[in-house]
Amino acid sequence: MRLEDIYAPVKEDLAEVERNLIDTAGVDTPFLAQLLKHILGNEGKRIRPALTLLAGKFYDYEPRLLIPVATGMELLHTATLVHDDTLDNSVSRRGRPTISSLWGGKRAILVGDYLFAKAAAFVANAENMRVIKLFAQALVTISDGELQHSAADFNLRQRREHYYHWIGAKTACLFSAAAEAGAILSRAPEASISALRNYGYNLGMVFQLVDDILDFTGEEAEIGKPVGADLSQGILTLPAILFLERYPYMRIVVGILGKKAAEGLKQVIERIRQPAIIDECFDIASSFCTKAVAALEILPNNNIRQALSNLVDYCLRRQK
Amino acid sequence: MRLEDIYAPVKEDLAEVERNLIDTAGVDTPFLAQLLKHILGNEGKRIRPALTLLAGKFYDYEPRLLIPVATGMELLHTATLVHDDTLDNSVSRRGRPTISSLWGGKRAILVGDYLFAKAAAFVANAENMRVIKLFAQALVTISDGELQHSAADFNLRQRREHYYHWIGAKTACLFSAAAEAGAILSRAPEASISALRNYGYNLGMVFQLVDDILDFTGEEAEIGKPVGADLSQGILTLPAILFLERYPYMRIVVGILGKKAAEGLKQVIERIRQPAIIDECFDIASSFCTKAVAALEILPNNNIRQALSNLVDYCLRRQK
Repeated sequence: MRLEDIYAPVKEDLAEVERNLIDTAGVDTPFLAQLLKHILGNEGKRIRPALTLLAGKFYDYEPRLLIPVATGMELLHTATLVHDDTLDNSVSRRGRPTISSLWGGKRAILVGDYLFAKAAAFVANAENMRVIKLFAQALVTISDGELQHSAADFNLRQRREHYYHWIGAKTACLFSAAAEAGAILSRAPEASISALRNYGYNLGMVFQLVDDILDFTGEEAEIGKPVGADLSQGILTLPAILFLERYPYMRIVVGILGKKAAEGLKQVIERIRQPAIIDECFDIASSFCTKAVAALEILPNNNIRQALSNLVDYCLRRQK
Repeated sequence: MRLEDIYAPVKEDLAEVERNLIDTAGVDTPFLAQLLKHILGNEGKRIRPALTLLAGKFYDYEPRLLIPVATGMELLHTATLVHDDTLDNSVSRRGRPTISSLWGGKRAILVGDYLFAKAAAFVANAENMRVIKLFAQALVTISDGELQHSAADFNLRQRREHYYHWIGAKTACLFSAAAEAGAILSRAPEASISALRNYGYNLGMVFQLVDDILDFTGEEAEIGKPVGADLSQGILTLPAILFLERYPYMRIVVGILGKKAAEGLKQVIERIRQPAIIDECFDIASSFCTKAVAALEILPNNNIRQALSNLVDYCLRRQK
């Protein structure tokens, strides 16, 4: 199933979000406009704003409130990407050079801050206190999670639980907030708000797990960054964690290779890509899919619920 | 006049802000707690939170609303300091090592993001939509101003107007928002809100002008950073701009020296420190003092107005 089919029920309002993003890039300063156009015009999947809009469709659909919040969710996500790439010294993202590699870390930090600011301004426009607090709390969780994780670089004893905690903070939390905000703005009953929050969280877990699998199994041309990019930065994701659970004596090898020796790293990546490990990663991702779909059960059984269910499937099966 | 005398009318509530800042540093993660304690325990002047509290004293004083917003203003300021030091590769601030010099740029970016998030969460707690929008807009102005300015590094033709625009965005805007927020939360009449906004803006201009003067005239031990630190980073502030207006042929020399040659830089700094230039800088700072005090005229003539007037004087005369 293609994303555009899943997004069909909110197609027009998602186009409005896209226009907001383009407007955000259209500032007076030519230099800044060029930077922002580069970041915001990268044709991302726009899953977070789509979540806000779809989650807002079950009860009182209010595009006037949902569109600015959906825009804010995408801008917050983009801001964290820009800062992440700066932290990691990444040179490419989605097949394009990163801001920090093109214009230096200094401007990348400032552009990220600017996007945080614009995100907050968009969310404030919906004038809903609960959504504003949810948004601020999501930002606290994301940055706290990244900080905690930054203390764990090259920690090869990292357990799955730490990994789940980390991706929960960096990805699932914002998926969850995006869905919950849509529910709140449509004046959904509390049980439905809670269901959509859970759905969003588990969908976010699937999304990040698959991202981390594709980092090993994908082709550079398709995923838009070098294979094994995380491991080469000393970042252990699920496939590497499962690999080290099976072959504990490889810890020392990975620890040395991660920092240096591209050829040795390639061999380790080959071993991590083995079907037994990748299959187990997908099993784990599937278990989050089950939770996401189960969370939807109390919602009205309509085309929107079907779209959200299809979105889970899309996130599991995607190739990029 | 000492700051603690000026702050006397809000002494207790400012102590509450201080406790909030300490609480923000007291997170579960020992590593993060250590980082935050380092940043938030630096005994800053706390002018921004004091402004919010003092501005809130003219009408219905509501500490329950003012204290979280005052805390948010200080946290936002601290976040921008952390990112600024990362951008500039500064090694010290207020006589202490910077976060980025101690723990690397990566964690400094994340700590800054975390402080932005906590700032937004505190401000949201006052549940005042106008203040939330003011806060978000201040963050947009600050980051937009820094981005525009980042395009002007080593631009020796930089005029005074660009400089005023820049310090207006990076410093005066937040002073202005801090004072305006206090006025809004105390349900001041619109004319008084506008007066306090103007007062804050002009006070911020004085504060930054004097900061930039002290960068040349201060002693390293007192200002907590090397003399001429901005110029050595290629950043032109008012004293350097006035110097180049008087001696345009020095442009090329400053352009070369700024990037290299510590000894040559010292000589240029000596020449910029000449009384004629420093006096002209202080004259300009005084003109903003006059505007700040004039803005107070429509407010009730009481001990708070006197404190705000004394604060202008303090900002002009301070030695650090």
